[in-house]
Amino acid sequence: MKDPRPSASAPHRRITIHDVAREAGVSLTTVSHALNDRGVVDPATRARVKQIAQQLGYRPSVRAQRLRSGRANSIALVSSMPFAVAGGTSRLGFMMEVAAIAAEAALGRGLGVVLVPPLEGAGGLLDSLDIDGAIVIEPVANDAHIALLRQRGVSIVSIGREPGTEDPVPFVDLQSEYTARLLLEHLHAQGRRRIGLLIGATPRQSYVETERAYRAFVAAAGLPCHIVTAQESEGEAGGAAACAALLREQPDIDSLCAPVDAFAVGAIAHAQSLGKRVPQDLMVVTRYDGIRARSHQPPITAVNLHLERVASLAVELLFEHISGGRERASVAAPLPELVPRESSATSATSATSATSAASVTSARPATSAPN
Amino acid sequence: MKDPRPSASAPHRRITIHDVAREAGVSLTTVSHALNDRGVVDPATRARVKQIAQQLGYRPSVRAQRLRSGRANSIALVSSMPFAVAGGTSRLGFMMEVAAIAAEAALGRGLGVVLVPPLEGAGGLLDSLDIDGAIVIEPVANDAHIALLRQRGVSIVSIGREPGTEDPVPFVDLQSEYTARLLLEHLHAQGRRRIGLLIGATPRQSYVETERAYRAFVAAAGLPCHIVTAQESEGEAGGAAACAALLREQPDIDSLCAPVDAFAVGAIAHAQSLGKRVPQDLMVVTRYDGIRARSHQPPITAVNLHLERVASLAVELLFEHISGGRERASVAAPLPELVPRESSATSATSATSATSAASVTSARPATSAPN
Repeated sequence: MKDPRPSASAPHRRITIHDVAREAGVSLTTVSHALNDRGVVDPATRARVKQIAQQLGYRPSVRAQRLRSGRANSIALVSSMPFAVAGGTSRLGFMMEVAAIAAEAALGRGLGVVLVPPLEGAGGLLDSLDIDGAIVIEPVANDAHIALLRQRGVSIVSIGREPGTEDPVPFVDLQSEYTARLLLEHLHAQGRRRIGLLIGATPRQSYVETERAYRAFVAAAGLPCHIVTAQESEGEAGGAAACAALLREQPDIDSLCAPVDAFAVGAIAHAQSLGKRVPQDLMVVTRYDGIRARSHQPPITAVNLHLERVASLAVELLFEHISGGRERASVAAPLPELVPRESSATSATSATSATSAASVTSARPATSAPN
Repeated sequence: MKDPRPSASAPHRRITIHDVAREAGVSLTTVSHALNDRGVVDPATRARVKQIAQQLGYRPSVRAQRLRSGRANSIALVSSMPFAVAGGTSRLGFMMEVAAIAAEAALGRGLGVVLVPPLEGAGGLLDSLDIDGAIVIEPVANDAHIALLRQRGVSIVSIGREPGTEDPVPFVDLQSEYTARLLLEHLHAQGRRRIGLLIGATPRQSYVETERAYRAFVAAAGLPCHIVTAQESEGEAGGAAACAALLREQPDIDSLCAPVDAFAVGAIAHAQSLGKRVPQDLMVVTRYDGIRARSHQPPITAVNLHLERVASLAVELLFEHISGGRERASVAAPLPELVPRESSATSATSATSATSAASVTSARPATSAPN
């Protein structure tokens, strides 16, 4: 007879209820009843079965437990934002920052987070993964992943509203309109009056709200309106190309609001290739306060979106919905805060002090023109 | 009768085989046979059942498919390296960089990657997740996660060898001894002769190999041997405390090899608080070329471990073992390459050029003393 106990090398044959029954010399039913404290089993036999199960290293099958509980114990984290935008070569960016925090928050609820990266094959994976729910990061209009998850009957929440529908999945509101106003008011306060806007061509809510805020802002302040779009899949090169197109049309632009950090970096590189100095000739500000903004030379003014709280709220909201709660259709993220850096500083002195500042603004949403 | 089709709001009741049977006016068995191309079903009925299933948006249950295939379609990524070390407040570091790449590589094989973060509760999650295999990042001696996974009979590979055993799980060799020699030879070539070593107190293979390489190096070169350890859980503060202890004992140390980036950053902060200039008074080098090394002021000399390739190799190796392959007990990562930066530059000029250099060394493993 083979020794059913695990040895040092991996992987091992799983110890099953059959091994326990054989070792204890009782029936499978007796083992099952004994281990699950069900049925009528002699107390001494029950104790002996439990002891043998423990000695053999028996663990109930995860799959069998799962079928009883109906829970997969995991949630998917889905993004369609290309890695070219999300983090460049290291891929570390918005999605992975959210992933790390979401994994921590989910673990507290006994849930694992499965990464579904923005790549071909993601749909197939969403189709085959056994999950209790999904968090979709910044969905696009008519989001294919959301459609697929809906069809599967899986609970869904999004970070950033699902655009282009009156009936979005429950979401954590990223407050992109407020963020855009923060950035625009900052550029205006730095004395800039010819402010361009560079957004992605993909229909995401953050672009929709940013464009709306920009149009309202320049109209109210009596400033010219210059909007250009870039392809997300092109990453930094897309930002450079869009900046080139904008500067060909409007060579006297004195500042640029580029909410996507990859676009901001590409735009700065292009402006510098034309001999423009940042921030003196062109101030550039962005949204995501990630590696790119922080390690760029010059460091780029960005916005603290409180991603830690955002990701935790998303897990909370999803957990509510998985558990049958339906009350909250959305929750608001904390108010974003400006992180001013050298890319929009008016002097070398202020730039240096701003670089190390965590957050210095106390701006509130403006309902009328700033002055 | 309720409309079984999905409406716009989420989540929806799942369309089941019962809905298809009712709509088609046939038995459950007929639906099952028709959809799975089994049994004897009239071709016209088969076609009609398939059409109705499609119209209703029916998808076979992932859980039922899973039970047939015996596959969970996901693998776990496990780390016991505290987030304090792994990435600081944003948590973006070694684990998440590996996670992003592993998720991409796994997706190509139809597998999802479940994050198991280095936090309390990870063991419970590993116990309850339905997974086909696991990648353990830099396991410790007698690793609790590996023991748990072995008991479950799950395939396991590690990134970095499992230390302290003759029978480690299959692993991707991080070549930490080679990496340590690269860093030590670099400091030696920069003219430094009083080189301290700062490693973690946890029993990981990379520390074991680094210490071995360091002892061999200083012995062969006739240099003094100064080793200090820090607690991983303390992150940068642990590095600062270890540096303080080392400098109290050996105030004339002229350089420090601190393979953990968090320790290197903490050590630099402490040295600077004593008025020491980096690199002039104390050169500091580290291993992981992450955000910390790149965005630190001054930028820190590090090593390109080719994590992209490392993570892909780990997924490949795990997939081999899940599929029943047993040939390869280990695979070698590509040879690490030095990324020299200002923290170990001999002059301001070389520092500036080194900051943007990707990799300039052509060092080979030394078997005798450097000179």
